[in-house]
Amino acid sequence: MVVVRRLPRYYRYLNDLILHNVTRISSAELSRRMGVTASQIRQDFNCFGDFGQQGYGYNVKHLHEKIGEILGLDNSYSLIIIGAGNLGHALANYAGIEKRGYRIIGIFDNDPQKIGTEIKGISVSDIKNLETFCNENSVDIAALSIPKGEVQEITRRLISAGVKGLWNFSYSELETPDDIIVENVHLSDSLMILSYNITNK
Amino acid sequence: MVVVRRLPRYYRYLNDLILHNVTRISSAELSRRMGVTASQIRQDFNCFGDFGQQGYGYNVKHLHEKIGEILGLDNSYSLIIIGAGNLGHALANYAGIEKRGYRIIGIFDNDPQKIGTEIKGISVSDIKNLETFCNENSVDIAALSIPKGEVQEITRRLISAGVKGLWNFSYSELETPDDIIVENVHLSDSLMILSYNITNK
Repeated sequence: MVVVRRLPRYYRYLNDLILHNVTRISSAELSRRMGVTASQIRQDFNCFGDFGQQGYGYNVKHLHEKIGEILGLDNSYSLIIIGAGNLGHALANYAGIEKRGYRIIGIFDNDPQKIGTEIKGISVSDIKNLETFCNENSVDIAALSIPKGEVQEITRRLISAGVKGLWNFSYSELETPDDIIVENVHLSDSLMILSYNITNK
Repeated sequence: MVVVRRLPRYYRYLNDLILHNVTRISSAELSRRMGVTASQIRQDFNCFGDFGQQGYGYNVKHLHEKIGEILGLDNSYSLIIIGAGNLGHALANYAGIEKRGYRIIGIFDNDPQKIGTEIKGISVSDIKNLETFCNENSVDIAALSIPKGEVQEITRRLISAGVKGLWNFSYSELETPDDIIVENVHLSDSLMILSYNITNK
């Protein structure tokens, strides 16, 4: 569903409004702030139930909670990070992850220099122990911050160990069965779009 | 243009094909590999000129070059990184940046512990010197890997120093004039979409 791609942004905006003590907002005002049409906003929210009241606007806190529920943020997903390099460190320290109820339960690497070091209180494990760890712990999501050359093999191992979703930062499209959810963050794609838009504005 | 969002992915695939010594590919085959319809592919490429030949397919190398040109990858954009934390380190070391012709020409931070340290041969500069640096060097793009609280003020300074594009990793929507190009990488948005799809698959 395309609307799902817009929900995190609504969630972020509503969170900002709460921090600024805004309790109600009309779709017109939300539209102005977000650069989305008011009718789009009403249509998006209507997909999930009736959140607003005609002529009264949305209850910001209620709407924020509802969108959080729809996004499943109360489910407390468990997450492991594969690759304890700079990006793995950045992800482990990324406040956005734990604030939204995700639990980082393991970090893995194959580099003896990194294995046993601590990142945010978590000891980096040897990638050899991946399967044992996944057997003993229920792992929902694996973040892949490893080089392209290693990613297909690790992907295969993660899937057979029962991981349900892959958050892929490697410059590679993963080959996965249909029931595995993949979300790609291809950093260079967004950089290329940025420079295209600079040149062609 | 929406098609522009798809070009980096084509570019990536074509690059993979070159590495596998594939010289020609039909839109049908490219479609199968990429999970995009063949008619979408033909339509996308037709936006920019005639790259294929009926019944003959696309010349992979030629198409790769053409898409690179359209994306402006031969322009050698200059880039600075604001924030020398884990994410700033990860970006500086990200092979995808320099391989595509972007030149990282400066890294800035406000932390005395970080100023003067080297990342990939670049000495981290004091953020105080941002304006002087931008006056002396033409800066196309600034990557923002700094906390949300600092980002609006830095954005204001970058824009008045003449930076054209912002690659924003902070959990914040930037307030910018219309002629400034912003590309947001909201990591937690993609994580929320991933977990939503796990729960609702």
